[in-house]
Amino acid sequence: MTNPIHARLLALAGTSLALLSTPLSASIPPPPGAAELAQRGDDIAWSITEDLTTEIGPRMAGTEAEAAARRWAVARLQSMGFANVRDEPFDMPVWVRGEEDAWLTSPFLPQKVAITALGTSASTGAKGIEGDIAYFESFDALVAAPERRVKGKIVFIDHQMAPAQDGSGYGYYGRGRFTGANVAAKKGAIATVIRAIGTDDHRVPHTGGTNFEPGVKPIPAGAISNPDADQLVRQWKRAQQMRKSETEMGYVPEPLRMKLVLTPQNLGTKQSGNVIAEVPGRDPAASPVVVACHLDSWDLGTGAIDDAAGCAIVAAAAKYVMTAGQPRRTIRILWAGAEEVGVFGGKAYFEKHGTEKHAVALESDFGADRVWRIDFKLPDSATALADRLAAAVMPFGVVRGKQPANGGADIGALVQAGVPAIDLAQDGTRYFDLHHTPDDTLDKIDPVQLRQNVVVWSAVLAILANSADSELP
Amino acid sequence: MTNPIHARLLALAGTSLALLSTPLSASIPPPPGAAELAQRGDDIAWSITEDLTTEIGPRMAGTEAEAAARRWAVARLQSMGFANVRDEPFDMPVWVRGEEDAWLTSPFLPQKVAITALGTSASTGAKGIEGDIAYFESFDALVAAPERRVKGKIVFIDHQMAPAQDGSGYGYYGRGRFTGANVAAKKGAIATVIRAIGTDDHRVPHTGGTNFEPGVKPIPAGAISNPDADQLVRQWKRAQQMRKSETEMGYVPEPLRMKLVLTPQNLGTKQSGNVIAEVPGRDPAASPVVVACHLDSWDLGTGAIDDAAGCAIVAAAAKYVMTAGQPRRTIRILWAGAEEVGVFGGKAYFEKHGTEKHAVALESDFGADRVWRIDFKLPDSATALADRLAAAVMPFGVVRGKQPANGGADIGALVQAGVPAIDLAQDGTRYFDLHHTPDDTLDKIDPVQLRQNVVVWSAVLAILANSADSELP
Repeated sequence: MTNPIHARLLALAGTSLALLSTPLSASIPPPPGAAELAQRGDDIAWSITEDLTTEIGPRMAGTEAEAAARRWAVARLQSMGFANVRDEPFDMPVWVRGEEDAWLTSPFLPQKVAITALGTSASTGAKGIEGDIAYFESFDALVAAPERRVKGKIVFIDHQMAPAQDGSGYGYYGRGRFTGANVAAKKGAIATVIRAIGTDDHRVPHTGGTNFEPGVKPIPAGAISNPDADQLVRQWKRAQQMRKSETEMGYVPEPLRMKLVLTPQNLGTKQSGNVIAEVPGRDPAASPVVVACHLDSWDLGTGAIDDAAGCAIVAAAAKYVMTAGQPRRTIRILWAGAEEVGVFGGKAYFEKHGTEKHAVALESDFGADRVWRIDFKLPDSATALADRLAAAVMPFGVVRGKQPANGGADIGALVQAGVPAIDLAQDGTRYFDLHHTPDDTLDKIDPVQLRQNVVVWSAVLAILANSADSELP
Repeated sequence: MTNPIHARLLALAGTSLALLSTPLSASIPPPPGAAELAQRGDDIAWSITEDLTTEIGPRMAGTEAEAAARRWAVARLQSMGFANVRDEPFDMPVWVRGEEDAWLTSPFLPQKVAITALGTSASTGAKGIEGDIAYFESFDALVAAPERRVKGKIVFIDHQMAPAQDGSGYGYYGRGRFTGANVAAKKGAIATVIRAIGTDDHRVPHTGGTNFEPGVKPIPAGAISNPDADQLVRQWKRAQQMRKSETEMGYVPEPLRMKLVLTPQNLGTKQSGNVIAEVPGRDPAASPVVVACHLDSWDLGTGAIDDAAGCAIVAAAAKYVMTAGQPRRTIRILWAGAEEVGVFGGKAYFEKHGTEKHAVALESDFGADRVWRIDFKLPDSATALADRLAAAVMPFGVVRGKQPANGGADIGALVQAGVPAIDLAQDGTRYFDLHHTPDDTLDKIDPVQLRQNVVVWSAVLAILANSADSELP
């Protein structure tokens, strides 16, 4: 029984080198429309996403929930018929969330704000801490500030992230989260609170990791939602105007004060692991194609878009290629552990497998919305291969990009070591509405766009897994 | 200095009876477009909404925050130039929220769900309670269920609310919140959890009051967000399938269990109050026009759409009419206290003023989105008046409805006693995305639509405040 996707993949994956070396656009059936995609019964990716998020839910790296997710993953990948399914363990430091509450306490009546601790945040202790807020309009303003504006204060970093289809604002706006607390700690701040790195207007703040340099003592670090940050800024402005008098600044602003209760804990070294499965290739000498995602998630939501969907997409695509006929190269599925808290899984994979030859690596870790662009970082020998790939995905609404592929966190070490990479860039317009929030739940996944991902990945993977040794390392 | 709204209101409020008895459409300037409305500097309503939600924030009935809001309100209404500004106190029972946490504990790994207690909920005690979930697809299913399906269980009431422009689903879907816990308590449930009465997909559950009959001992009652309810239902279905065996039902379902920690408290009788202000009319013998809203809010958000915006709209409209020239009738502004928790302010107003003659009553308590329909409940003498009103608001995109005006909670007792009423129905399509959640914050208010409200209210109020004794009581 061959369904339309299988028929299409059989065509794409055909072993005739003649087929592989000529443009495929003439040989393939017209692409399915969105309505057709929506009605298809091939819901492998949906069922993986639903089952993982329902039966396991949040799966913070190094916790019992992540271990349960790995057991679930091994069983699921085995039941799908993949070979060499295993859990490759590694050790990592574990940080877990505690209580989290915050209030704007003065000069107005106390008002509660929605806060979440950032990964590696220190604890305030159960009684919490209270202090004056030092306001900074951006990360850059904090970096430029003299110590006296920071010392003994709770630093607040403003700067609202704007949405972008390619998610390109994350690096720029994200600096406040990535290292804002470190900068503030070095200047003597007692805590750091950032406007959450997110594009939504809901009171569900975005968590994520923050990094302290070696030798810098961590301070409590949290993120508040956009509506709460708006409120803080309005109160800040009013507080500035509330008590003017003669000083060198022209007035003494009324202090805006905040109380924080954040009680996260470091649990020490625990075990995580990478779950790996394979579609064995016909040619044992050929290097494998690696398709990656991460199995762990932050603890606030159920990790549906980040990254159950990515794991579902790469496994579903590998399954379709396998069903269509054994490929020449091995496809290696990497469901990495402990990505969110420091890419420990990606590093562990590289330590164990980095010296092996890899043909090419791809990662799905940007939600479940449609693929809209394909980018390449391939050797010169793969020029014709890239043309074939671009032609194969074009009918599904995917354009060819001009910048080099980035790879992704879990395959980052491989790509840095020279392994070729391809990005199937997903539409990130709404990704940072949900990213790292309690709202990252199954209902946010659009089944039609999820299927488009699987179709595009299947087409690409079929071609890559049958590529020639003269094309890829 | 006359701005376009003032010029328009002067025309509408002209004392010429000839003008009042003929259609106004020929005599008024073309209505402002949305862009024009957006650019106008008359932001009285916006500034009331911003100041109240920023400087006071959440203002739960009977608390110090509500008292602070009343002091703020008296000062603001006085500074706007209104007369007879006062706080009319009344007593009421006060209920306040405590801790609130919940988990789906079995048969899967524990997963936290976003829960909020419903007003008058009993406490679980600090240690919480745990029990099997009895699932009901709707309030009606719970009503129909035999006691044995409920006794000793945590009742869950499903039934997702769908959005409607006129908000008409609130009464139907809302039954699970209004009296679901009462029905469950009478059948021996240990607690009730409902799918929140809301149309959004965020993990910010909607609170609201629930009512126990006299003699029924309150049980803990909470609402969980739509994504959490979806998750509960998915786990429920899987639990049903997990352990089949022979019984009268054909199988013994695996129990889905939940743990609840809800620690609200009843604080006994405390004081609330109605803040009242007036635009004194030229004719002391003429009955007043009452325009109402409520000043209190639930405690989760800052009560921007519910109901700071309503208070801002009625006060801004009254201010515009006052500025345009003294009206014949007195306009009485009622910023009612303690609406959310049982309409105590509306009842207190009626007890104190119910025997006075009132010309007509209107209320704004449905957010800040645009007025789209006008409905009447007027005496036969007011047929021409209704025609004039409908013609006056038509240019602003407001259609004439066919059903009788409802009035609103705070003027409900007046309307039931026979006071004429007019509804300026607001677009409620997104109202129940935000209603009674932490997301009810200033950023949700669209300044353009808020201004349309003020313009429509001003036009209506100018005509009503200058209506003849032959038209209204």
